[in-house]
Amino acid sequence: RLRDILITMPPADIAALFSELSEKSLPLVFRLLPKDLAAETFVEMDSDLQHHLIQGFSDAELQAVVNELYVDDAAALIEEMPANVVKRILRQADPETRRQINEILKYPEDSAGSIMTTEFVSLRAHMTVADAIKRIRQLGVDSETINACYVTDDGRRLIGVVSIRTLILANENDRIEKIMNRYVVSVRTTEDQETVAKMFAKYDLTVLPVVDGEGRLVGIVTVDDAIDVLQEETTEDFEKMAAITPTDRPYLKTSVLEIWKSRIPWLLVLMISATFTGLIISHFEDALKTYVLLTAYIPMLMDTGGNSGSQASVTVIRGLSLNELEFRDLFRIVWKEFQVAILAGATLAAINFVKLMFFDQVTLLVAFVICLTLFLTVCVAKLTGCIFPMLAQKAGFDPVVMASPFITTIVDALSLLIYFRIATMILGI
Amino acid sequence: RLRDILITMPPADIAALFSELSEKSLPLVFRLLPKDLAAETFVEMDSDLQHHLIQGFSDAELQAVVNELYVDDAAALIEEMPANVVKRILRQADPETRRQINEILKYPEDSAGSIMTTEFVSLRAHMTVADAIKRIRQLGVDSETINACYVTDDGRRLIGVVSIRTLILANENDRIEKIMNRYVVSVRTTEDQETVAKMFAKYDLTVLPVVDGEGRLVGIVTVDDAIDVLQEETTEDFEKMAAITPTDRPYLKTSVLEIWKSRIPWLLVLMISATFTGLIISHFEDALKTYVLLTAYIPMLMDTGGNSGSQASVTVIRGLSLNELEFRDLFRIVWKEFQVAILAGATLAAINFVKLMFFDQVTLLVAFVICLTLFLTVCVAKLTGCIFPMLAQKAGFDPVVMASPFITTIVDALSLLIYFRIATMILGI
Ligand SMILES: [Mg+2]
Ligand SMILES: [Mg+2]
Ligand SMILES: [Mg+2]
Ligand SMILES: [Mg+2]
Ligand SMILES: [Mg+2]
Ligand SMILES: [Mg+2]
Ligand SMILES: [Mg+2]
Ligand SMILES: [Mg+2]
Ligand SMILES: [Mg+2]
Ligand SMILES: [Mg+2]
Ligand SMILES: [Mg+2]
Ligand SMILES: [Mg+2]
Ligand SMILES: [Mg+2]
Repeated sequence: RLRDILITMPPADIAALFSELSEKSLPLVFRLLPKDLAAETFVEMDSDLQHHLIQGFSDAELQAVVNELYVDDAAALIEEMPANVVKRILRQADPETRRQINEILKYPEDSAGSIMTTEFVSLRAHMTVADAIKRIRQLGVDSETINACYVTDDGRRLIGVVSIRTLILANENDRIEKIMNRYVVSVRTTEDQETVAKMFAKYDLTVLPVVDGEGRLVGIVTVDDAIDVLQEETTEDFEKMAAITPTDRPYLKTSVLEIWKSRIPWLLVLMISATFTGLIISHFEDALKTYVLLTAYIPMLMDTGGNSGSQASVTVIRGLSLNELEFRDLFRIVWKEFQVAILAGATLAAINFVKLMFFDQVTLLVAFVICLTLFLTVCVAKLTGCIFPMLAQKAGFDPVVMASPFITTIVDALSLLIYFRIATMILGI
Repeated sequence: RLRDILITMPPADIAALFSELSEKSLPLVFRLLPKDLAAETFVEMDSDLQHHLIQGFSDAELQAVVNELYVDDAAALIEEMPANVVKRILRQADPETRRQINEILKYPEDSAGSIMTTEFVSLRAHMTVADAIKRIRQLGVDSETINACYVTDDGRRLIGVVSIRTLILANENDRIEKIMNRYVVSVRTTEDQETVAKMFAKYDLTVLPVVDGEGRLVGIVTVDDAIDVLQEETTEDFEKMAAITPTDRPYLKTSVLEIWKSRIPWLLVLMISATFTGLIISHFEDALKTYVLLTAYIPMLMDTGGNSGSQASVTVIRGLSLNELEFRDLFRIVWKEFQVAILAGATLAAINFVKLMFFDQVTLLVAFVICLTLFLTVCVAKLTGCIFPMLAQKAGFDPVVMASPFITTIVDALSLLIYFRIATMILGI
């Protein structure tokens, strides 16, 4: 029986299987799942399928799924659904669930409050371990995790944490205040989700408590959601580095017009900027007329410059993002890149020199002009590549935009300036 | 007292503070920490500082730290230390710890076996919940996590999992076989660490069991280490996309020569490839002599092409990496990119046309040549950008190398071919 196979599968795999089903058979197969597995699978499905399923649900079925979801997942679902579906979902939610969903929805997008869940176990300092375990047994079913139990005072302020492991290993009669850790890492509801996710990496957490302005515990973020944020933020960085305005939607679900909108602004800006590079060429038109040969090396010089600069900028951008580099390292970085540039520039120039003399058979002077330009371009590119992201970060911009497209555009202009200056000087044009 | 402040801080923060101390005061301050906090802080320090500390340790101190570490961290430490330090560490380790460290070290780099830890709690199916909790209380102190307890049979084969939460919520007399989940997601010791890390994201895990070829449970991977792997793999992708051979070392610790070595191969390959672009220019030298003006638009055409192609390729690369795109989506992707290309190409061409006619005041024919080339270049670039990563993936290469530098080099040549073909046709040169 299909049901017997389905219940052996993890929810994410069932959801993947469901995405292959026809619109018609999906609701039928979904109904085969036991209630808890149904809810877990529902969360893993993409929003189009969720929408489709909800439209086929009876009120009773919708109620069963909604109240089985963890509230953070319910809140995320509501953000994805159209207004009429949202109304239906909230109507079917228990009053308490509805209150908690609304609590989460009120926080701004990408804040700690918006990714937290409000179902957790809190303990009191005066409890004994036995009391605490009794309380966990009462509340634990509805709580997304019990790996960390937070201790609050009379004003619901967070005053400590005790892991389930400490509880299990402790003596039944120990008081919580004796075994709890008073130094709890926590975040404010307004904290940016990227900062939150990085704290999981830094402090090796599986849960992070979220407090309001008065230090009152209002929710917890679990590590699975933090990993999703990390992935989302990485995607955002990839997009920004490729001159794309980030969007939240998966590619195949995004319309052509939306993709166009996310890509055209930067293409335009960069195209206009490339005009300056064109102006430089126009300015040296006469020189080029005498030595048309020089034109043939423009792409090689510009590309090698762009690639050299991108290498430096991406290295620095990633270092900044991982907090391995800080602004105070600026001079160490510049000095290191300068040395690398000398080495790399010299290598490339030497190999090019051989190629120019033996394969292209240009004159010694022309070869010299090209190789000197190449060397200087690599130096300028590496320095541009490492300095711009550092300055952007210092000025409060996201250093990630100082990646390949931006650096390439600057380096293109600089490399041509160097090229024509050197050519006019050495070839006496 | 300094000690009173230190013990309130998370280990990662203490380690950050320690990295600011002088070489002399570090060992003195380190000795202030209580034994367990000392070990936790030691793990968070960078390998130079660890090395420095170990050299100052007495045998007794080294023994205390080494045996307090989780074995996966001890194994990671040993991989970073020079041979003579490794010998000292292993000599101070308990026989059982030493055996476990060696077990982990025998697995190939970046395999599941190499990032797992061998300290975990395993249960037997016939146990009652009370037996299980008793066993956890005995073994839990040394185990890195008890959030998931794995159930094994007589042959140490993995047959189920029970979360600590299920145990706590269950009845004391329930048998483990009754409450355990028989469908456990697990990995082989030889599995690639990136696959392992992505399973944490997909299945929302905090622990993942590792089994050998016979299905015997040999270790567990914890989510904090999975997050580190995700970050490492992201860094690797950033580097590959910027034409850098990935290294494991942080930038500031890498020597100039090593950086040069990781960057020069691709710069060379790409420089040589750019020669073809030069050849195209040489081939149309006569046309360029008649219309030197055309040269001024080469950088704009090449850059816009490169940027358009990079946008498509990065979008596809990231989609493939998140498993949002598969090879069977090829035609949908190509069709979508084609439509985006038409839109984006038309927009850019239109704006350029206005600029060419009113600001640059070129002739209508020349403006037409440039805009038509721009339009076609954007189309070709978008298609190149989306097709190459898909083909690379299909052919078993890492699609990530099909990013900006590679795509740019191809698109440069293609855009010039289009440019000169159209120019010779329309301008009749
Ligand atoms: Mg979001
Ligand atoms: Mg970590
Ligand atoms: Mg979840
Ligand atoms: Mg959640
Ligand atoms: Mg962000
Ligand atoms: Mg960001
Ligand atoms: Mg490694
Ligand atoms: Mg997940
Ligand atoms: Mg750790
Ligand atoms: Mg570990
Ligand atoms: Mg890898
Ligand atoms: Mg990879
Ligand atoms: Mg370029």
